[in-house]
Amino acid sequence: MNVDFQKGGGLVPAIVQDDRTGDVLMLGFMNEAALQETQRCGEVVFFSRSRNKLWKKGETSGHVLRVREIRVDCDADALLVRVEAVGPGVCHEGFRSCFFRAIEPGGEARIVEGRTFAPEQVYGQEKRQ
Amino acid sequence: MNVDFQKGGGLVPAIVQDDRTGDVLMLGFMNEAALQETQRCGEVVFFSRSRNKLWKKGETSGHVLRVREIRVDCDADALLVRVEAVGPGVCHEGFRSCFFRAIEPGGEARIVEGRTFAPEQVYGQEKRQ
Repeated sequence: MNVDFQKGGGLVPAIVQDDRTGDVLMLGFMNEAALQETQRCGEVVFFSRSRNKLWKKGETSGHVLRVREIRVDCDADALLVRVEAVGPGVCHEGFRSCFFRAIEPGGEARIVEGRTFAPEQVYGQEKRQ
Repeated sequence: MNVDFQKGGGLVPAIVQDDRTGDVLMLGFMNEAALQETQRCGEVVFFSRSRNKLWKKGETSGHVLRVREIRVDCDADALLVRVEAVGPGVCHEGFRSCFFRAIEPGGEARIVEGRTFAPEQVYGQEKRQ
């Protein structure tokens, strides 16, 4: 299976979906090394565009994403990773999913989910891992 | 609501999820104009990276994606569009979802969904719209 990393400059978007509920939890990017490491260890590893290095989701918080299935789309340039999400949520702002806001017709963002944990108790200074 | 288009060079990934079943159907990219047009007309419009222009999903096939809700993630650099998908499937290869293949532990791709339509009867020469 050759994933097309070239189209996105070495990266492909990787959608993370809760395998049990079907909820979309977050979206990250993977380069080839991140995908290989994800497959090797069975937990999701992304490539951080801002820090320019691999980062394992949950390495600080313990909220790791255990891989249940990895799917690839028709063009082989996007991944869908179905996971068991350990912990109360994946979002560094304290929500189960990073997609906790809806954009209203008028353009405003509205929070449509409830917080599931207090992020300051989980992350301390370092956020989002 | 300011979506961060800059991080991705003017584009953000837009996940399309079936609002009824929760299935992830496809992933496309939107620039600011594509998002505005999606909001204006109520059906999903992407920016095609390969053709370098806006393309409305379903403009050839009739398999449009009616917007039910648009969500934005914590960093405002990814979108989740919940839709009613008109027609038997969104994938130009004849599947309900573009994510019809799983990557096996050994690396091979395996088709894990059934075809829902014959793409040659829908698309003719021009594919994937």
